[in-house]
Amino acid sequence: MSLKDRIAAANRLAMARIEAANPVWTDVRPAIDVLPGMTRTTVLHAGPPIAWDDMCGPQKMGVVQAVLHEGLARDEAGAEALILDGAITVAPCHEYGAVGGMAGITSASSPMAVVHDPVHDVTGCSQLFQGPAAGLQDRDRYNAEARKRWRWLEEVLGPALGAAIRARGGLPVKPLMGRALEMGDECHNRNAAGTLLLLNALVQDLIRTSPPDRLGEVLAYFRENEQVSLVLSMAAAKAMGAAISGIPDCSIVTVMCRNGVEFGIRVSATGDRWFTAPANRIEGLYFSSEWGDDDAVPDIGDSAIMETIGLGGHAQAAAPVLQQFVAGSFARATAMVDEMAQITQGRLTQFKIAPLDFAGAPVGIDIRKVVQTRITPVIDTAIAHRKGGVIGAGQTRAPFGCFADALRAFSDTCQEVSPDAPAAQRP
Amino acid sequence: MSLKDRIAAANRLAMARIEAANPVWTDVRPAIDVLPGMTRTTVLHAGPPIAWDDMCGPQKMGVVQAVLHEGLARDEAGAEALILDGAITVAPCHEYGAVGGMAGITSASSPMAVVHDPVHDVTGCSQLFQGPAAGLQDRDRYNAEARKRWRWLEEVLGPALGAAIRARGGLPVKPLMGRALEMGDECHNRNAAGTLLLLNALVQDLIRTSPPDRLGEVLAYFRENEQVSLVLSMAAAKAMGAAISGIPDCSIVTVMCRNGVEFGIRVSATGDRWFTAPANRIEGLYFSSEWGDDDAVPDIGDSAIMETIGLGGHAQAAAPVLQQFVAGSFARATAMVDEMAQITQGRLTQFKIAPLDFAGAPVGIDIRKVVQTRITPVIDTAIAHRKGGVIGAGQTRAPFGCFADALRAFSDTCQEVSPDAPAAQRP
Repeated sequence: MSLKDRIAAANRLAMARIEAANPVWTDVRPAIDVLPGMTRTTVLHAGPPIAWDDMCGPQKMGVVQAVLHEGLARDEAGAEALILDGAITVAPCHEYGAVGGMAGITSASSPMAVVHDPVHDVTGCSQLFQGPAAGLQDRDRYNAEARKRWRWLEEVLGPALGAAIRARGGLPVKPLMGRALEMGDECHNRNAAGTLLLLNALVQDLIRTSPPDRLGEVLAYFRENEQVSLVLSMAAAKAMGAAISGIPDCSIVTVMCRNGVEFGIRVSATGDRWFTAPANRIEGLYFSSEWGDDDAVPDIGDSAIMETIGLGGHAQAAAPVLQQFVAGSFARATAMVDEMAQITQGRLTQFKIAPLDFAGAPVGIDIRKVVQTRITPVIDTAIAHRKGGVIGAGQTRAPFGCFADALRAFSDTCQEVSPDAPAAQRP
Repeated sequence: MSLKDRIAAANRLAMARIEAANPVWTDVRPAIDVLPGMTRTTVLHAGPPIAWDDMCGPQKMGVVQAVLHEGLARDEAGAEALILDGAITVAPCHEYGAVGGMAGITSASSPMAVVHDPVHDVTGCSQLFQGPAAGLQDRDRYNAEARKRWRWLEEVLGPALGAAIRARGGLPVKPLMGRALEMGDECHNRNAAGTLLLLNALVQDLIRTSPPDRLGEVLAYFRENEQVSLVLSMAAAKAMGAAISGIPDCSIVTVMCRNGVEFGIRVSATGDRWFTAPANRIEGLYFSSEWGDDDAVPDIGDSAIMETIGLGGHAQAAAPVLQQFVAGSFARATAMVDEMAQITQGRLTQFKIAPLDFAGAPVGIDIRKVVQTRITPVIDTAIAHRKGGVIGAGQTRAPFGCFADALRAFSDTCQEVSPDAPAAQRP
């Protein structure tokens, strides 16, 4: 079999696994209990690995706050000293089977949504949605609020959600995403429908299992936040990426993520190896006129795992409301989805885009197609302030460089090289 | 001022009132307590007035069951004798300030959602959503189930919703409809988002005010039915129609409704006068292959009040999922909305259609434009079985005849007739 045929077969296998995947939300537990390799002195962050000195402001700040929150240091200087000493392991969420939105700060006590796919026996975890915290760009106030919120997530929300989902016996996430897509979500920047569907599915279990004096807070969390379901979609997408990781000759992307400095991808055939390039800035709308491009960090967060499985920017015609953020139009959204179809393996009919006459979302980013067409994935995403907090939303593109690097490594990994194979792309 | 100018001014006034209207869901109470003129021996039905002998099967059956349910007769023969004697007042919901979906059967005990618009001091009421009752076309079983469901609505759901909405201090319905439109509803055949938004808005009040042993049933009602919010939208639409009723020289439709035999409209300038024509059949999809066109009654129900205010079929591009029922496409939906814009006064930006780049829904059906263009309103609607129950969904058109008749009467009503006035349309 030619290399080309082997790659085609491998990519078809990946697509079949994506289709067969059944990620089920099963639990909420502290990170220390569910993430393999997690320790009391580990702090995880979004995006590919990054040296402490290179880390962007909000992520650095988050790691320091997590060290304080876990009681490992008494003040910020002490926390930073521990980090510089190497007494704290600072590592990507993705290397611990997890994903984290925006800065992605996850420590031992963080309650994690656990999503398990019994078909492929893979698991994806995500921290819970922490609230937008917009308008809190005073650094000290932001950090105090973040830690207060973490405490609440650990003591109230995490246990309540965990008890409810265990009592329910789990909730399949793919139908939830499919249904939300029919209701104007693209499952990355817009999760208004997914969050309501989640509440509807869970409300009776929450009533049964929550402490009566905390039930009001838990329900208010759903009412006041429209992004609650995003973390389940992200954990499900992480599990779906895991299901197709490590397939020999498979040129499909399994992870896309960003740390505010670099954009990183992983490819199936090259397993856990990272390929990175500088993260792009985000074109979008700030929630207040007080903010501008100088306030924003470049693209950040593990949420691009949604585009990795064909949602978010790839399915943006399902959520025409989001065109407001990019001064766009339905025609623009449609054109973008068509563009993404040029760099992907196929259409996943489990994720239908109703206004495109039920076309499936374009799934399975093929690094060969990205390099050939020079079309890079479009990503719907929020905008983070350099002092913390979400200050806007819009769109960006994955940088080209990491795909070109990945293709070179992929070619080296493939044993046989035929004339029509990616080796032709070598410099 | 010429007649044409007077009509234009009157129609602009109607449009301004539609825009200014603020229908607020304030209560749920038995019909006898809230409908002006309601008596213990009155049974209301959907659509324009109709003689007993002409009434379609399911509506006739519903009136008889309501007489039994209210304890006014001991058996069906006794009930029918009372009706034929004139001891029971059988009248349209619309003549009592109410609307009723499908057969629309409403009797003294029926719990009514009350929607009040303080801006124009008008009220619209609707019976609660009774469940689809599909697959129950055995006449006796259907009637037994219907009466059981009525009892539950009266004893459990109505009091629970009433207590919750009173505790909440009311809920504005227009923003709910606007938000649902952004989430794939067109607020007639599809109310999946509206129902979830309603649950989210109300859940904490329901928990506080419902008897703990009935809370589960009440929440299950929201979880198991996707059309719960339709009745609030209908009551709000009825109130909006009332707000523009009786404006001299105004050629805008205030009511469209059907009784399974005739389609009826009312026009602002001609007040409460009915104009009718035979109801059309519905083109659509049956929920089971066991049903066909012979099982269905023609267009039935007061729910066309949604198209009267620019939603449903008029805004169908907001709900592309519904094209499945008519083997349609997004392009077809878009063309239909554009067509409706040709017969309406303007676009209501409070009801934005996101995939049409946020164009407002076409609102205010102008009978002159209908007659001139011969384009009649398109209506999204469910299909009723002639033995009761909903067996499908699809689309139909309002018949032309009632608009032509209305225009003749409108011309007579207008005192001055100028050459460019509707009198030109007289036969």
